[in-house]
Amino acid sequence: MKYTADLKKTVAFNNKTTHCVGTGRMDLALHKEYLDQLKLTQDEIGFSYIRGHGLFSKYMGIYREFRHMEGKAEYCFTYLDMVMDSYLEMNIRPILELGFMPDDLASGTETTFFWKGKISPPKDYKKWTDLVQATLRHLIERYGIDEIRNWPVEVWNEPNLPSFWKDADMDEYFKLYELTSRAVKEVDAQIRVGGPAICGVDDERWLKAFLDFVKEKNLPMDFVSRHHYTSYMPRLDGHYAYIDLHEPENAFKWLERSRDIVDSYDEFKGMEIFITEFNTSYVPNAPIHDTVLNATYVAHMLSRLGDKHESYSYWTFGDLFEEFGVPFTPFHGGFGLVADGLIKKPTFYTFAFYKKLQGDCLLRGEDAIVVKAENGDIRGLVWNADLYNEDKNKEIEIDIESLEDGEYFMIEKFVDENHANPLKMWHEMGEPASMNNEQKNLLRAAAEPGIESSNKIVKDGKLSLAFNLNPNELRYFEIKKIKRTSDTGYDYEAVIAQKCVPDENQA
Amino acid sequence: MKYTADLKKTVAFNNKTTHCVGTGRMDLALHKEYLDQLKLTQDEIGFSYIRGHGLFSKYMGIYREFRHMEGKAEYCFTYLDMVMDSYLEMNIRPILELGFMPDDLASGTETTFFWKGKISPPKDYKKWTDLVQATLRHLIERYGIDEIRNWPVEVWNEPNLPSFWKDADMDEYFKLYELTSRAVKEVDAQIRVGGPAICGVDDERWLKAFLDFVKEKNLPMDFVSRHHYTSYMPRLDGHYAYIDLHEPENAFKWLERSRDIVDSYDEFKGMEIFITEFNTSYVPNAPIHDTVLNATYVAHMLSRLGDKHESYSYWTFGDLFEEFGVPFTPFHGGFGLVADGLIKKPTFYTFAFYKKLQGDCLLRGEDAIVVKAENGDIRGLVWNADLYNEDKNKEIEIDIESLEDGEYFMIEKFVDENHANPLKMWHEMGEPASMNNEQKNLLRAAAEPGIESSNKIVKDGKLSLAFNLNPNELRYFEIKKIKRTSDTGYDYEAVIAQKCVPDENQA
Amino acid sequence: MKYTADLKKTVAFNNKTTHCVGTGRMDLALHKEYLDQLKLTQDEIGFSYIRGHGLFSKYMGIYREFRHMEGKAEYCFTYLDMVMDSYLEMNIRPILELGFMPDDLASGTETTFFWKGKISPPKDYKKWTDLVQATLRHLIERYGIDEIRNWPVEVWNEPNLPSFWKDADMDEYFKLYELTSRAVKEVDAQIRVGGPAICGVDDERWLKAFLDFVKEKNLPMDFVSRHHYTSYMPRLDGHYAYIDLHEPENAFKWLERSRDIVDSYDEFKGMEIFITEFNTSYVPNAPIHDTVLNATYVAHMLSRLGDKHESYSYWTFGDLFEEFGVPFTPFHGGFGLVADGLIKKPTFYTFAFYKKLQGDCLLRGEDAIVVKAENGDIRGLVWNADLYNEDKNKEIEIDIESLEDGEYFMIEKFVDENHANPLKMWHEMGEPASMNNEQKNLLRAAAEPGIESSNKIVKDGKLSLAFNLNPNELRYFEIKKIKRTSDTGYDYEAVIAQKCVPDENQA
Amino acid sequence: MKYTADLKKTVAFNNKTTHCVGTGRMDLALHKEYLDQLKLTQDEIGFSYIRGHGLFSKYMGIYREFRHMEGKAEYCFTYLDMVMDSYLEMNIRPILELGFMPDDLASGTETTFFWKGKISPPKDYKKWTDLVQATLRHLIERYGIDEIRNWPVEVWNEPNLPSFWKDADMDEYFKLYELTSRAVKEVDAQIRVGGPAICGVDDERWLKAFLDFVKEKNLPMDFVSRHHYTSYMPRLDGHYAYIDLHEPENAFKWLERSRDIVDSYDEFKGMEIFITEFNTSYVPNAPIHDTVLNATYVAHMLSRLGDKHESYSYWTFGDLFEEFGVPFTPFHGGFGLVADGLIKKPTFYTFAFYKKLQGDCLLRGEDAIVVKAENGDIRGLVWNADLYNEDKNKEIEIDIESLEDGEYFMIEKFVDENHANPLKMWHEMGEPASMNNEQKNLLRAAAEPGIESSNKIVKDGKLSLAFNLNPNELRYFEIKKIKRTSDTGYDYEAVIAQKCVPDENQA
Repeated sequence: MKYTADLKKTVAFNNKTTHCVGTGRMDLALHKEYLDQLKLTQDEIGFSYIRGHGLFSKYMGIYREFRHMEGKAEYCFTYLDMVMDSYLEMNIRPILELGFMPDDLASGTETTFFWKGKISPPKDYKKWTDLVQATLRHLIERYGIDEIRNWPVEVWNEPNLPSFWKDADMDEYFKLYELTSRAVKEVDAQIRVGGPAICGVDDERWLKAFLDFVKEKNLPMDFVSRHHYTSYMPRLDGHYAYIDLHEPENAFKWLERSRDIVDSYDEFKGMEIFITEFNTSYVPNAPIHDTVLNATYVAHMLSRLGDKHESYSYWTFGDLFEEFGVPFTPFHGGFGLVADGLIKKPTFYTFAFYKKLQGDCLLRGEDAIVVKAENGDIRGLVWNADLYNEDKNKEIEIDIESLEDGEYFMIEKFVDENHANPLKMWHEMGEPASMNNEQKNLLRAAAEPGIESSNKIVKDGKLSLAFNLNPNELRYFEIKKIKRTSDTGYDYEAVIAQKCVPDENQA
Repeated sequence: MKYTADLKKTVAFNNKTTHCVGTGRMDLALHKEYLDQLKLTQDEIGFSYIRGHGLFSKYMGIYREFRHMEGKAEYCFTYLDMVMDSYLEMNIRPILELGFMPDDLASGTETTFFWKGKISPPKDYKKWTDLVQATLRHLIERYGIDEIRNWPVEVWNEPNLPSFWKDADMDEYFKLYELTSRAVKEVDAQIRVGGPAICGVDDERWLKAFLDFVKEKNLPMDFVSRHHYTSYMPRLDGHYAYIDLHEPENAFKWLERSRDIVDSYDEFKGMEIFITEFNTSYVPNAPIHDTVLNATYVAHMLSRLGDKHESYSYWTFGDLFEEFGVPFTPFHGGFGLVADGLIKKPTFYTFAFYKKLQGDCLLRGEDAIVVKAENGDIRGLVWNADLYNEDKNKEIEIDIESLEDGEYFMIEKFVDENHANPLKMWHEMGEPASMNNEQKNLLRAAAEPGIESSNKIVKDGKLSLAFNLNPNELRYFEIKKIKRTSDTGYDYEAVIAQKCVPDENQA
Repeated sequence: MKYTADLKKTVAFNNKTTHCVGTGRMDLALHKEYLDQLKLTQDEIGFSYIRGHGLFSKYMGIYREFRHMEGKAEYCFTYLDMVMDSYLEMNIRPILELGFMPDDLASGTETTFFWKGKISPPKDYKKWTDLVQATLRHLIERYGIDEIRNWPVEVWNEPNLPSFWKDADMDEYFKLYELTSRAVKEVDAQIRVGGPAICGVDDERWLKAFLDFVKEKNLPMDFVSRHHYTSYMPRLDGHYAYIDLHEPENAFKWLERSRDIVDSYDEFKGMEIFITEFNTSYVPNAPIHDTVLNATYVAHMLSRLGDKHESYSYWTFGDLFEEFGVPFTPFHGGFGLVADGLIKKPTFYTFAFYKKLQGDCLLRGEDAIVVKAENGDIRGLVWNADLYNEDKNKEIEIDIESLEDGEYFMIEKFVDENHANPLKMWHEMGEPASMNNEQKNLLRAAAEPGIESSNKIVKDGKLSLAFNLNPNELRYFEIKKIKRTSDTGYDYEAVIAQKCVPDENQA
Repeated sequence: MKYTADLKKTVAFNNKTTHCVGTGRMDLALHKEYLDQLKLTQDEIGFSYIRGHGLFSKYMGIYREFRHMEGKAEYCFTYLDMVMDSYLEMNIRPILELGFMPDDLASGTETTFFWKGKISPPKDYKKWTDLVQATLRHLIERYGIDEIRNWPVEVWNEPNLPSFWKDADMDEYFKLYELTSRAVKEVDAQIRVGGPAICGVDDERWLKAFLDFVKEKNLPMDFVSRHHYTSYMPRLDGHYAYIDLHEPENAFKWLERSRDIVDSYDEFKGMEIFITEFNTSYVPNAPIHDTVLNATYVAHMLSRLGDKHESYSYWTFGDLFEEFGVPFTPFHGGFGLVADGLIKKPTFYTFAFYKKLQGDCLLRGEDAIVVKAENGDIRGLVWNADLYNEDKNKEIEIDIESLEDGEYFMIEKFVDENHANPLKMWHEMGEPASMNNEQKNLLRAAAEPGIESSNKIVKDGKLSLAFNLNPNELRYFEIKKIKRTSDTGYDYEAVIAQKCVPDENQA
């Protein structure tokens, strides 16, 4: 590919990469490993929001009815405080997904996941809205109303699937949405609420029906939410799920359909859409997530998802996650950007690199993005997504124009089969389930990206860059103008020219 | 080069690389940056001893005479305690170099270095030996006699140079040695004492005379010490010193002469020799120290220094050092393994890699060492010292024999022009004197070695390794037998074979 | 009370206070708050062992059967490694209580506790012993056989109660013990195993029958275990349980009965008895645990429990504990020495003080212990347990004889209603459920003991100490001989005599 | 004393206690112990500015002339960057005292202090102003102009004393001020500059002459600075200085004279006066600094210093200080709020308590201050300065009126002979020069203030407080309205009423 980027011309690019990230169920946020993984993520990427399930599930301990007190409902916010304190300390705040049903409030016994989230409607809707309101009021008392107005509230998760909402009963969900959205606004009119958080394959039926319902009842709705996964049904083998990926363009089309539906309503035209979950595969035992292909495939997605969405939340930041039970090995196809043991996976860098692509966009192509940052640096990302396993290198040339003449410092960081790919090394180690510290440290070192640097001279405003990318390579670059000021007597050429001299030759 | 290493045959290799390391003057050990650099060094290398100047110099504050108390001598161990506590916390102990002269005890005004260490003999030898004994007794009281018996005591530093001992007065030094060595043994007969710490170019005159004197007077002496630098006189330019290096074989010959002299005395034959300082250049503003050539040149030295010496102390672990004043820039040719800003230099890895070469030595060549570690791993180091700036690659082949058949995991770490060479990147940055955190972090990342891994299959006990080394590349490798145990259903080949599939092709 | 302690006479005192401590279920050891509480405990007390439930319970994730793999059993040690790594880092090791039953292995649906530990026998004993052996073998592989031989294994928990073992079926437990104890020894004959871990009210029936069974079948048994709680049945009010305490002597009698039974068998005479749980109340919502009375009552117990037992494990070190669900407030009568929020309770100091009482015991009375420590210090503890709420002070006098004459430094630390009693301050704060950092910091400060110091002069070898203890005061003291060495010119009396002087009076 | 504080009436109180604090010479800020002491100070008190000597002194390494480069002047900001980075990390910024003279720039050989600060004028004023400007420009480049505009610049230190300015030559100082103040403004007109930093006993002569000079020459001057010490000349004994204190009112009078002089000029009326140093004694070996009398004496000063000054900088925050050499013992009468070993002295709490007295002042008396904080809490400080060593208690009663009725939580923290007075315990320990960690930890514990708490009921808006203060007691209190919300079933009275019950009495 051959591109030109001109500092005098900008193109559209709505980079919301770090708006939100997914997480395992909320009480896992009490775990040390979870918090360590989140800290690593926040230190190097820094998401604004975090969204996951389980706010009201059993082990958060919020809702209890006590038999010896005639079934009196009591609210316990001990763990909620711990979790939210931890989040705020790490400068991240929740999108509050309301769900699943507290054990003591569920009308049925149906559950989802290893950890048995209850998926039936409340046995008493009044008790449910009381719970929602009590929770919000507690949060307001602890963190202040200004803070809570920044925490979007999403009603339930994937009600269009029977595994998450009993019988995927649409009318029951609409009832839940109606009562819940009104209860939220009763607490404070500025708290934002949305739904329907559908898994994203049911637009025509569910999304339309939902919007019709909201419109008809004139319900509060501040954003629309859906999910987005781009794999076919997996093939199972033992503990693992192997997948085929959809071709990227196909996947983008599904999303456009949602946007079109929303925009077809005068009332909702242009309303913010939150993709509150996305990833390649939708199961937490899909080894695709650990690969360099995942990193470049997602790089491609991130170049476009902002076009029609205000948020797209990668599912999930870390591998401390228990939907299918406790993983048997550190690399087990978990959703996380970070593997257990604090080992960054290739896709971690997709986000770390995109995070830097803020500023005026100069170029956005199939496999390249270039921006001019606020401080004047030129930053870019190029990638070679080996979608069809062809194992070919790719040449990318980028001419950058209208630069200030002079000397520049160029730094490149890259991920490929042999860099920032700890899965490969873990395989070579013999795929150990139980690792010692030496192994973990080695994998952490192997998880760092390659790094290269050079000087570039710009003349007549122009700089030509040529990249030869390995299969599934993801390469970030940064170009900074420098002011060279050598210290008195320092001469780098002389430094590296020093050598051995035989006695007879020495002056 | 082509080598063979056979697990059934071992060769001699006395690896004392981590016995001791040099340091800037002792009161710098109160500085945060110094302690941070030492911690990094100890975490990744882990020396047993540390030796430097300045124990009795002014800013350690140990010796004071107060005029308003009729010149009464007082000992203040406040800072000594702080320094020794810090050392022991980091699991390192001092070789106690006794010197320089306290300001209040010096007989003259002569000084050395920017920090004005006093280099004249004591105005009163009784006060000097009292000071030495009081210091040792204080240390014994604080740390216990068993601990202090492990702290060798060296009398003064380079008395054969007029910059370190007034007029390089040999008789005066012998007097100092006589009184001091006896004073030390008076405190405890098991505290080890030695000298003459000469800079190492005066063997015939100084070393012989010293040994004659010790023998004649029957003085205590538990080890002999000298220094070793391998550069010619530097060429000065502004703040910097550029050097030519001696050819390695020449340099080894000087050391052999010391060994021969010591062994020529029946009384001292085989006595331990401590090289209490060594490096390429002997000035702290010699940019050679920051280069990859320095790393490979030193790699070669380390392969041989243990043959005749019990200790060889690289001068120094860190760049927090003030002999010529405060450095103007982070890369200024300081002696340190670590540059200011906690940036590891190439030679840091020479030591980090040698540290791993413990066990049975299987091969020691011009540019290669292989050992079998206690845990059974095979570890090796190969290097391509580009001594004459020829810029050529080097092929090294090593056949390892008598291995157990099976699958192995091989890890390689390497340093070269483009890896673990922060000097190059700092130059490309424009040689900034004053760096921000972003620059420091980038250099720290650039200071990590390259890392590669692979699987190897051993059949008939044999493994053939072939290395193609870049100029000034230093490459460490480690080979571990593995027991491969894939988790149920995990198939790495299937994992990396996953890809996109058009809708029409999907089953 | 009036006592005499003579350094020439020692009395018996088997101080095993820090041998073992209890813990909430094992997977809570993945939680940050738990680990922080344990670190605080280990830093200031330092137990050798930790024992709790839940090794095999669902959320440790160890045992799984997969339907899609024909019910194949798989072992997952991911979390077990995390927990044991954390324990060893904090220098504590587990007494491995084998239980409860994995969900996938239980023969019934009966559960105990909020977290639903399965209490039925295995549906297949072979699968159970396989699991036990696989777990031990995994631990041996990871931590080494020498380490694991130090981890006692206890078979199940309180099988004599139907809430912990289905129908409290004795024969079924014996079967479990037989198969399990043999399976353990099959792995390694030196791993220690014991039981029956009864709750301690059923000695005649259960303990005797158990010992008969072990004897008859000649089963492995390296120690006998039981529990010990000293409260009557609680009175419930809302979320809380209020109790009456048994009089201490009564409680000691129960324990003697166990000892007598064990000793009545020739085969078991003198065998180690582990009290694998003890506390005042046996429910985790009993506010007695948070009080100063608890601290002094336990002080009394600790003075005697070592007489017949090798271990007595306070139930539990921390309040992160979920047997009755998540606590609503920080002070909720949890078993812990440490409240949530890292706030030490009074009983924390009972242990911290006893930990220091190592050495030769000079005095052991109703309310006083004095020892001579290895370093020569005299250390003691006195207490005024206000058992009957009489609110009276107590005078205690101790004469210490045969001391070396000279000056001593005495330090006292104490707990009472107004010191190290955060419960009182929390109550005064309004009993907040949800605390901010300012409140937590205040309670942490209030949780520190009072501290007093003085100088004592010993003449003719004698020192007389007089204590006037507040109700429920617990007072630790330490007496050290000092060598006073004032610095030149330092005169403390002159220091504190300095003052203001009017101009006209100034010399 | 009896006071009334009414929430409806406020009184004047300009509390600038935390505006600035003093420090040892600047290069000590490279030391770990210094930074640890500063961190402790900032964590618990939090000053805005820090001021001390030595910016241009030798060991900061800023100014060098090199003989081999024909005396070329070079600026090295390596250490300056380290120090300023550390300060900003701890949220404190310097008042830049320009001094003393770089060794290479001094016109004479005169020095001050153990560390030999050069006190002669520059040998070349152009080189001096170049240095000042280069330093400011470097700081601006590194930290930004907005930041540096917040760093006041003070020209030299105590030029009216011959120990700090050669011959205390007034005309020479005026020349220095003229050239320097103009050079500063040339860099940026908004950087604030001031002087004359006189030691404060020479108002009539120096201050007037200085202001006349500034006025006549129309020089830049943004604030006036002086120092303030309140002890008579010390009596020396060995290493120590014992003092008499001036009566407080006398001392305030001197300051009023400075204010009057400044205000007597139309041009300077109301100009900010910075007391850039104050303390009781002016020598760093005066044991008064370590006492509780110092704490209460300073408490009294702080109640009034803000009346006429914008800044009053306690000399100094920490004991890492070398003006008279390295201290022999941890308690040596250093200026610091914190002793070496991170031990807080009584006066530390004078500042920690005053820091909280922000808000509307309700009462300011001889020995009491009460404020209403922004959050509605009532906070106060009472003290019993035992100025004349009379060893009497003092009764203080305060009626607070116009409070909201209801229940309040009162917290009290106090310092006296037996609380937060580590000097006493150190003396009892035998005045050890060299302390182990156990001793340090004990002293750190002993350095915490006493803490008491209670509930108060306000009726008819009134609360009466009565304090009985020990000699030299300093007592801080805080009163917060509470909303009591006991958890279901929690009854504190029942909790503390629990007790032992004989079997026969138990229900």
